[in-house]
Amino acid sequence: MKEVKIGLLGLGNVGKGVWKILDMNREELIKRSGYDIKIGKILVKDINKKRDVDVPKEILTEDFNEILEDDSIEIIVELMGGLEPAVDYMLKGMKRKKHIVTANKMAVATKGNILLETSKKEGVMLYYEGSVAGGIPIIHGLKDNLVANKIEEVIGIINGTTNYILTKMTQDKISFEEALKEAQAKGYAEADPTSDVEAFDAVYKLCILSSLAFDTIVNVNSIYREGITNVKPIDIEYAKEFGYVIKLLGVIKESNGELELRVHPTMVPSAHPLANVNDSFNAIFLKGNAVGDLMLYGRGAGELPTGSAVVGDIVSILRNKEKSSYYPHLGNEEDKKIKDMQEVECEYYIRITVKDKPGVLGEISSIFGKNNVSILSVIQKGKREEQVSLVFITHNTLEGNINKSIEMIKALDDAEKIENIIRIENL
Amino acid sequence: MKEVKIGLLGLGNVGKGVWKILDMNREELIKRSGYDIKIGKILVKDINKKRDVDVPKEILTEDFNEILEDDSIEIIVELMGGLEPAVDYMLKGMKRKKHIVTANKMAVATKGNILLETSKKEGVMLYYEGSVAGGIPIIHGLKDNLVANKIEEVIGIINGTTNYILTKMTQDKISFEEALKEAQAKGYAEADPTSDVEAFDAVYKLCILSSLAFDTIVNVNSIYREGITNVKPIDIEYAKEFGYVIKLLGVIKESNGELELRVHPTMVPSAHPLANVNDSFNAIFLKGNAVGDLMLYGRGAGELPTGSAVVGDIVSILRNKEKSSYYPHLGNEEDKKIKDMQEVECEYYIRITVKDKPGVLGEISSIFGKNNVSILSVIQKGKREEQVSLVFITHNTLEGNINKSIEMIKALDDAEKIENIIRIENL
Repeated sequence: MKEVKIGLLGLGNVGKGVWKILDMNREELIKRSGYDIKIGKILVKDINKKRDVDVPKEILTEDFNEILEDDSIEIIVELMGGLEPAVDYMLKGMKRKKHIVTANKMAVATKGNILLETSKKEGVMLYYEGSVAGGIPIIHGLKDNLVANKIEEVIGIINGTTNYILTKMTQDKISFEEALKEAQAKGYAEADPTSDVEAFDAVYKLCILSSLAFDTIVNVNSIYREGITNVKPIDIEYAKEFGYVIKLLGVIKESNGELELRVHPTMVPSAHPLANVNDSFNAIFLKGNAVGDLMLYGRGAGELPTGSAVVGDIVSILRNKEKSSYYPHLGNEEDKKIKDMQEVECEYYIRITVKDKPGVLGEISSIFGKNNVSILSVIQKGKREEQVSLVFITHNTLEGNINKSIEMIKALDDAEKIENIIRIENL
Repeated sequence: MKEVKIGLLGLGNVGKGVWKILDMNREELIKRSGYDIKIGKILVKDINKKRDVDVPKEILTEDFNEILEDDSIEIIVELMGGLEPAVDYMLKGMKRKKHIVTANKMAVATKGNILLETSKKEGVMLYYEGSVAGGIPIIHGLKDNLVANKIEEVIGIINGTTNYILTKMTQDKISFEEALKEAQAKGYAEADPTSDVEAFDAVYKLCILSSLAFDTIVNVNSIYREGITNVKPIDIEYAKEFGYVIKLLGVIKESNGELELRVHPTMVPSAHPLANVNDSFNAIFLKGNAVGDLMLYGRGAGELPTGSAVVGDIVSILRNKEKSSYYPHLGNEEDKKIKDMQEVECEYYIRITVKDKPGVLGEISSIFGKNNVSILSVIQKGKREEQVSLVFITHNTLEGNINKSIEMIKALDDAEKIENIIRIENL
C-alpha cells in the first residue's frame, strides 16, 4: 500500500481532531484515497506540555525546519492560526514543493492572494475548506459544485459563538452578559471573546466567501462590521412581536456590479430557514442564477467537524496527484447485508377505527403487550357514534412486533379497520 | 480560447436548462473552466417539434450515431431518462472515449456498476450529480467533501412532488387528492403521478445515496418502499397534536454492519430542520462520525437547478482534463466596487427612549419624513413613567437617510437615547 506523510503545524483543537480522524477512519481513508496517511511530524510550541491526545512524543518538534527539510513529508497541514509565522511557513513549504492544507481564516482572508500565486508558481496544491464554517463544505461548493452559477447573494450565520449567545438570549430571555458567561462555561466562547462578539471572526470568513462567490479579491477592511454586544433582550422581544428573530448575519449581495459586504445583527423573518439555525450551528444560504435557493447547515467549529474538512482536503490532494482520481467512486462490491424490515426498530403511530363498546381499548392494548409493543400515548376521541378512532403512539419496537400485533387486531370483531400506520423518526 | 463540444441526448426540461445556463453564464464558465463550452449536437425524437427554446435546427438530430461518430464531441450529456436506450448510448459513448454526464437516476441506480466499470476501463470520466436532488451537491458531498467520515445515517426529503403535496395537505388541511390536483396544475406532478406518489422515484435516489455513503452496491429491490397515498388529513392533524409533521423520508442507517434502507411517510419532530423543508424543496440530513450533523437544502428538480448540477459536472470534467485544474480558484484581480454603507438599502428597526411628553412622536416622525424614511410600524409602550420607548420599523431605505435622521433626532431635547438600530433582511 502507498503511504503519504504529512506534517502538522499546531496541535490545538483542530490538530487533535485531524489526529483522531486519521486514526478512527483509517480503513475508509485507505480505501477512498489509495493512501495510508501518516503524520510524520507535528510542530508544537512545547514538546513537554501535557496533552489529552495519545500522540507519540518522538514525532513532536519545536523546530519548523525539521518539517520543511524532511522531503518525505509531502503535505503541510497548517493549523496554527494567526498571520505569522503561519503564512511564512506555508510559503516556505510551497517553495519546497509541499502541498498545503490550512484552516486559517485570517491567513486566507488577508494573504490568500500571495498564497494562491505561490501555489500556482510552485505547482503545488492549496486547500482551505476548514477556514470557513468548519465541516460545512461551502468552499468546495462555491469553487466546484456551483461553478455553473452567477451567485446573486450569500447570507450566512458563520460564527457559532454569537449564534449560541443569541439563541440563549432568545430562548431563555437572558442578557448578553449572562449568555456570554454560559458560552464561556461551555467552551463555546474564549476568555477574551472580542474576536467573536465583535464579529472580527465573521468578517474574515465573509471575506473568503465573497472572494470565491464573486471571482474577485476582497480587502477585509472594506467589509462593514458590527458585533452583537448592543443587542438587548427587549430588542429580541420586539423582534418577536414583529415576526423576526435576531441573528448575526454575514451578507453579500451584488447589484449593478457593486458588492454589498456587511456583518451585523439582523432581524430575519421567523419562518425563514436561517431563523431556525440555533445554538452553535452555522448555515450558509445562497442564491445562484441557476440553482436558485440553496442552504448548507452544520457544525461551524469543533475539533472533529473542522478536522473533517481538513482531512477531506488532504484526500483531495491525494486524489488529484493520481490519474486514477478521475474515476468516480460509486461503491465497491462489498457484501453489505441489508436489514430485513421486520427487524427495523421505530416508533409507530397507529390509527384504528373500532366499535364504540366497552373493553375494546383493553383488548387491543393487551395484544400490543403480548407482542412486546409498549405504548407511549393513546388518544380516543369519542363522538357518541357507533365507531371511534383509537390512536396509539408506541415506544421504539421491532416492525415485526407491530405486524404480528396488527394481524391479531384485525382478527378482533370490535376492530373495524386499521386506518393507518406511520413510522416516527425521533431525530 | 479553447473550445469543447458536447453532445446532448434529450431536450426536455433539464436539456433546456443546460442550454440556457451555457448561454446566460457563458463568460463566467469560460473564466472558470478555461473552455468555451459549445453544444455540438442534440439528439431529439422529432426535429420538427415546436420548442420554447431558441436552439438552431441544424444542430438537432434524430440519429444517435451522428453524435457517437463525431470525434469533435468529447462529452456526452445524457438527459433522456429511462433505462434504454440511455444506458446503451452511454456505454457506446464511453467505448468511443467520450466522457459522460448524466442526470438519470434510474440508470445510475440500477446500472451504475456497469457504467462505472466501463468508464474505468475506457479511461473516461462519468459524473452524475444531477441524478439526486437536483441542484443540491449531495453526490459530490458524499464522494469528496465528506470523504473523511464514516457516514452513520442519511435522511432525506428527496422527492419534491410528494413534499409539495404533503406541505399543501398540512398547511391548507386538504385531502391527498386535492393536493395532487394542485400539484398537477402547477406542473409539480405528472399526469400519471405513480412514480412520485408511490415513491419509486425516491427509491432510485436513495439507492444512489446509500451506495455512495456506505461504499457498497445496493440493489434497488432491497429498499423498502411505501408511498403517500394513504396519508389522511386526520393523520396530519394527530401528528400535529403529538408535535410531529409528516414527510416522505428516505432513511439509511447503519448498525452492526447492517444497512436499513426504507422510503415511507414518516412523522418528524416539528422542531427538526427537516420538518421545516416545505413545498417542492428537497433536503438531505446526514450524520458523519467526524462532521456531525449536516444538512443540505435546495431545489430538488427543475430545469435550471438540475441544469446547474449538470453544467457543474461538465466543468469538473474540463478541469480534470487539465493539470491546471489543481490550482484552486480564489478569485481574479478584478476591480469590483464595494458599495458604500451609506448607499446600502435595508429595512430598519429603531428603538428610542424619549420623554413622555405630547408631540415627541410627531417631531421624530417628521424628521424621518424629511429624510425620505417611510415608517411601516410604530410601537409606543407607555408605562406612565417619565420615559417611554418608541420603536419604529421602516420601509426599505438608504442607510444614509437613516444616519441623517438619527443625527437630527439626537439633537432633539425630548429624545433621551437612541437605544438600538438593527437592520432587517426580509429574506
